[in-house]
Amino acid sequence: MELIRSLSLPAIGTKLTAEEAMSLAISEAYQGAARVSPNPLVGAVVLDAQGGFLSAGHHEFYGGPHAEVNALKNLSPEQLKGAHAFVTLEPCAHEGKTPSCAKMMAKLPLKKVTFGLIDPNPLVAGQGAEILRQARIEAEVFSSANPVLDAKIKTELEEVCEAFLWNFRKKKVFVSLKMASSLDGQVALRSGESQWITGPESREYVHYIRACHDGILVGKGTIDFDNPSLNIRHPQITKKNKVIVVDGEAELLPNFTKLKLSEVHASEDVIWCVAEELREKVEKLRGTLVKSPDVVYVKTRVGGDLDLEDLLAQLYQKGLRSVMVEGGAFTASSFVSYHLVNRLYMFQAPIIMGSGGSRSWTESVRISAMTDKIQLKNPRYLTFGNDFMITGTL
Amino acid sequence: MELIRSLSLPAIGTKLTAEEAMSLAISEAYQGAARVSPNPLVGAVVLDAQGGFLSAGHHEFYGGPHAEVNALKNLSPEQLKGAHAFVTLEPCAHEGKTPSCAKMMAKLPLKKVTFGLIDPNPLVAGQGAEILRQARIEAEVFSSANPVLDAKIKTELEEVCEAFLWNFRKKKVFVSLKMASSLDGQVALRSGESQWITGPESREYVHYIRACHDGILVGKGTIDFDNPSLNIRHPQITKKNKVIVVDGEAELLPNFTKLKLSEVHASEDVIWCVAEELREKVEKLRGTLVKSPDVVYVKTRVGGDLDLEDLLAQLYQKGLRSVMVEGGAFTASSFVSYHLVNRLYMFQAPIIMGSGGSRSWTESVRISAMTDKIQLKNPRYLTFGNDFMITGTL
Ligand SMILES: NC(=O)c1ccc[n+]([C@@H]2O[C@H](COP(=O)([O-])OP(=O)(O)OC[C@H]3O[C@@H](n4cnc5c(N)ncnc54)[C@H](OP(=O)(O)O)[C@@H]3O)[C@@H](O)[C@H]2O)c1
Ligand SMILES: NC(=O)c1ccc[n+]([C@@H]2O[C@H](COP(=O)([O-])OP(=O)(O)OC[C@H]3O[C@@H](n4cnc5c(N)ncnc54)[C@H](OP(=O)(O)O)[C@@H]3O)[C@@H](O)[C@H]2O)c1
Repeated sequence: MELIRSLSLPAIGTKLTAEEAMSLAISEAYQGAARVSPNPLVGAVVLDAQGGFLSAGHHEFYGGPHAEVNALKNLSPEQLKGAHAFVTLEPCAHEGKTPSCAKMMAKLPLKKVTFGLIDPNPLVAGQGAEILRQARIEAEVFSSANPVLDAKIKTELEEVCEAFLWNFRKKKVFVSLKMASSLDGQVALRSGESQWITGPESREYVHYIRACHDGILVGKGTIDFDNPSLNIRHPQITKKNKVIVVDGEAELLPNFTKLKLSEVHASEDVIWCVAEELREKVEKLRGTLVKSPDVVYVKTRVGGDLDLEDLLAQLYQKGLRSVMVEGGAFTASSFVSYHLVNRLYMFQAPIIMGSGGSRSWTESVRISAMTDKIQLKNPRYLTFGNDFMITGTL
Repeated sequence: MELIRSLSLPAIGTKLTAEEAMSLAISEAYQGAARVSPNPLVGAVVLDAQGGFLSAGHHEFYGGPHAEVNALKNLSPEQLKGAHAFVTLEPCAHEGKTPSCAKMMAKLPLKKVTFGLIDPNPLVAGQGAEILRQARIEAEVFSSANPVLDAKIKTELEEVCEAFLWNFRKKKVFVSLKMASSLDGQVALRSGESQWITGPESREYVHYIRACHDGILVGKGTIDFDNPSLNIRHPQITKKNKVIVVDGEAELLPNFTKLKLSEVHASEDVIWCVAEELREKVEKLRGTLVKSPDVVYVKTRVGGDLDLEDLLAQLYQKGLRSVMVEGGAFTASSFVSYHLVNRLYMFQAPIIMGSGGSRSWTESVRISAMTDKIQLKNPRYLTFGNDFMITGTL
């Protein structure tokens, strides 16, 4: 994820190469972050017949106009004559909530449309491009002469809409894990104390990442120790989110109304995950509560832990498309052990907590040979004040 | 420490501000890295009467000419008329291995000398500046109108000669700790396997850091598991180093000749650290060995571990001024627990090893409240291939 930032667009007429135009379209796409789910982030850039910058646009919010429409809407037929549009994703062929972008573009005097990714839906993949070609507009997937550059841009193109692609391809929730640790990988003292490991700059960014997900998931321990609000507090974002609590034995449920969670969120936005075996007992309990969260009953594994795959499948059924796991130690390491994390956001503070008296976020992860190490792919580093953050896919 | 790099100097005549000149002098100083110990790294920059860049120089090797001499040597009296010299450290007042720099400069038609740090020796501090003033050359400690900038430059000025300052102020060895860990802070599997955590770019830089220290220290376990060479293998550096092995019970000493260490290093460059109590036994053993390293006998603590402070004091007596601790887990965490580390070099690879089956570099470090966390000061981040490195002082 990129930082929210006021993207500075080039001056009108500035010549851009194809790579520059596509990179700019990617940055444009991120401007819609936190507002388009479950749609993908999409960005578009238009160059004039001479390769000079004309305009840019992005998909701004769920249900709103697509990126292409926003990029093209203020341009005159004169300006569009011989123009070249760059879009991060293949223009859609079919009407959905909005009219077909390919058909809209086919009516314009464009010379060429270059798109980043082919539509991930095999049933319509290539159809947007075909509509354009029938209107005698060149339409092709981005590629430069340089395979290294192409691979880099491909990775960025996939990343910008990674949750959408994952949802589409796997019909599963996209899971991010965010952890704040010391330099030696510790996330809490044995006593439960963990505030604050990272500084205010990191914590503000965490609220941005929260906003990029439909829900925030934590284990019972974190609620118990920290009594957190788990809402989105960011100067530039107003958004409601779901909160998911993993509490296999429903231990904290009777006290739900006393938790900060229940003050801050509407009850239906809080989802309590409890063992299937406890359904009857818990339903009875809910009848006695003044206020009760939504509850999902989850299959258990040998040993009694909730089956996190089943848990995620149920969240998907409820319409959640992306979830950020925010801890604590036990919950984070369970998601890592079961290989359920798509993207890691690891914040590290320049401190040492000592592993002798504290807990790591991989306490239940065990490998027996270096060849089995879990690799973070496409790692990127950002600094926030004195902290740094590494993100990548697992 | 900065990367070894071919420093690109500005074109002659380029106007530099005082901050830019001092920053350039700092970068110049680093060009002597790995060659000046036990002297400090020092850099100098000369601007002409109009503030245009004239030349730069650094202390290149132990016993060689000082930075000021190298910066000034090729300039004509014409060029030097009204010139302004910037030096990271106060020009020396006294003759040592080389003539007094202050006296040399006093003979030149300079207008002003700005230096970064006052000579740390209170007996001669300010005397270099005084010699210059008597020759009607302005001489002052660097300071700008901006206190934030001044603090930053002061930190960099101290850092560039940190080992020297520590040696001088405390009469102690400067200790760096280098560790290579996974993102979750693990440095080796329980089985002992740890190769390779980080990639080749990181490992090459480690050889540079090795070269910036007089000795490399490891625990017995690392010798046992890895049988390492512990020499300096860097494309741009040829340097011999000392190796220090902490082996309280002299367990590996009988096999010394079979170790890679003993092939690669002259025996007198390897220092074995053994419990004082074993002196007699070990001296007898040494008599029977074809080849024996140097041995220091170290006081023990309750429990039998060597007293690392005594160990470092003995290394100081032997003339070592900086040591890099390179592991393993036990040794590293002992140095951290006893607060004996001056600078940390923490390389992290974008991998997860899982703390469930591996070892951390702070296994014996334990804090009981977040207020006791160990803070890394002035942290800086560098990336090496897919890894990153954080360095700072403890
Ligand atoms: N540094 C950070 O980023 C960060 C973030 C969040 C929290 N924390 C800290 O982490 C600590 C809490 O960690 P923690 O490990 O004790 O608690 P936790 O992970 O928040 O919660 C663990 C508990 O959640 C329940 N749970 C989790 N996964 C489950 C599953 N698959 N099936 C059934 N139940 C499941 C279990 O409850 P039962 O045992 O009742 O079954 C388990 O004991 C606190 O100190 C908190 O401050 C740190
Ligand atoms: N990732 C990295 O950066 C890195 C670097 C180096 C090594 N490693 C890995 O780390 C592992 C080795 O770690 P380790 O903890 O087993 O071994 P270690 O720290 O290299 O050596 C530990 C042993 O050294 C002796 N020792 C250390 N400090 C002592 C003291 N103060 N007094 C007396 N003896 C002292 C002790 O021997 P006695 O028990 O006989 O008294 C102790 O057991 C290996 O797997 C290696 O591959 C990783």
